[in-house]
Amino acid sequence: MHFADSLIKKIASISPICVGLDPNISKLPEGISHDAAGVLAFGKGIIDAVKDLASCVKPQMAYYEVLGWEGMKVFFETCAYAKSQGLLVIADGKRNDIGPTCEAYADAYLSKDSPIDALTVSPYLGSDGIKPFIDRCQKNEKGIFVLVKTSNPSSGELQDLPIGDEAVHEHMAQLVQSWGGECLGPNSHYSSVGAVVGATYPEELKYARSLMPNAIILIPGYGAQGGTATDIVPGFVNGTGAIVNSSRAIIFASKDKDWQEAARKAAETMKEEIGAVL
Amino acid sequence: MHFADSLIKKIASISPICVGLDPNISKLPEGISHDAAGVLAFGKGIIDAVKDLASCVKPQMAYYEVLGWEGMKVFFETCAYAKSQGLLVIADGKRNDIGPTCEAYADAYLSKDSPIDALTVSPYLGSDGIKPFIDRCQKNEKGIFVLVKTSNPSSGELQDLPIGDEAVHEHMAQLVQSWGGECLGPNSHYSSVGAVVGATYPEELKYARSLMPNAIILIPGYGAQGGTATDIVPGFVNGTGAIVNSSRAIIFASKDKDWQEAARKAAETMKEEIGAVL
Repeated sequence: MHFADSLIKKIASISPICVGLDPNISKLPEGISHDAAGVLAFGKGIIDAVKDLASCVKPQMAYYEVLGWEGMKVFFETCAYAKSQGLLVIADGKRNDIGPTCEAYADAYLSKDSPIDALTVSPYLGSDGIKPFIDRCQKNEKGIFVLVKTSNPSSGELQDLPIGDEAVHEHMAQLVQSWGGECLGPNSHYSSVGAVVGATYPEELKYARSLMPNAIILIPGYGAQGGTATDIVPGFVNGTGAIVNSSRAIIFASKDKDWQEAARKAAETMKEEIGAVL
Repeated sequence: MHFADSLIKKIASISPICVGLDPNISKLPEGISHDAAGVLAFGKGIIDAVKDLASCVKPQMAYYEVLGWEGMKVFFETCAYAKSQGLLVIADGKRNDIGPTCEAYADAYLSKDSPIDALTVSPYLGSDGIKPFIDRCQKNEKGIFVLVKTSNPSSGELQDLPIGDEAVHEHMAQLVQSWGGECLGPNSHYSSVGAVVGATYPEELKYARSLMPNAIILIPGYGAQGGTATDIVPGFVNGTGAIVNSSRAIIFASKDKDWQEAARKAAETMKEEIGAVL
């Protein structure tokens, strides 16, 4: 199924929750080894705990890459396990390059038989760094989420710079809307080309929503970074069109033996909080 | 030794040539297997062929990542081999993220015992996405090259947008100069924080040079992308302060059995061309 159609369907039937898998090895809970095997066991345990509460997981590639090739091995195994459990998988790699190199990144993560459904991408290089990914979205029913307005404090250093009457991130939002025009889901009319806009900037989120009517917005920054349920409301249209990511507040809800129950409880709380405002 | 001091020394004693290792598996020459083992053998063969002509190699991570974890394994092996042969190693990963995730990327590639000397990074997230890398530059004698004005045709879609009287890439160049101020080499007075500016935009390269007096400029786009020896001159000051990357024109100079000799000859020609204009 078209990626956007799959995701919109899951948002409706399950929730708009995305659980970020950020398996920082120094924070792994009791009983989990501090190595690649532990990272895999931890990821599987979190997936088991939240699979009926979340529509997707977002493994953060840096925490796997820091373990070298053994980390990359368990990264792909974690993605495959999430997929086998019915979750959509968004690899958070923020990849970006041009020409044949960008083709290689697209093949690395969005090939037909990849367990990954979508990849985050960084837009500094312009459309040369986006088109090879869009091609795989179209051919292989995959998706991308392009960084537009990120959740971090310094995001404005580049993203808020004024270009005439608009900011860089507003200009980027318009590019994302235009890039996505060629790959709309036949059922949802949302595009395989989504956008990242942080919960920590609710005003910008509201405007981004209006500039990108066809983009599914991935909203990070909920929970540990300070974003609240009220903050994410402007990202949604009639209760859909966006997913909200929380990583640390769910996966590290407890460092003790009860980490799976605690993660599940944190995801349930998040689902209730978001359900109450949408 | 401080990264910038090492690189400036090599530019003086050997050449400002950086050989890009883009082991596109579909283009590997005769006698090389089309798998991770072949990619390793090819990389080592190119390193052997150019090690006394180039100051550094730039393995492009996408071509390793597309081979999965086996690719990442030979990526690190290729980097280690290059280092053992006396070359500086610039991993072209264009990594970018924030906070603890950015710390993980910094540890993944710029830890004390990493065979990698420097990493390319993408600046869309602002200083939150740069500072953890700068910390490793300072602690571990490593370097980064921040994308400023990239060599591709669509780079202007974001990078040339006008912010008042200046373009985004000019603003970015000033940020790079300020970020690099804290990590100047004691001998060279160049910074561990370098910049990427494409040979395909010689006017922008000239201005970037003036905006970033302390940044070593990594100039891609020579050869296959159309940049010539004349185009790269504005990146240099008194014959130093920049490195020029060529990938395909060197590594795929021949697809036949003579690929090593052909790569060496192409690197020699490039060295002569650049030597003639500097």
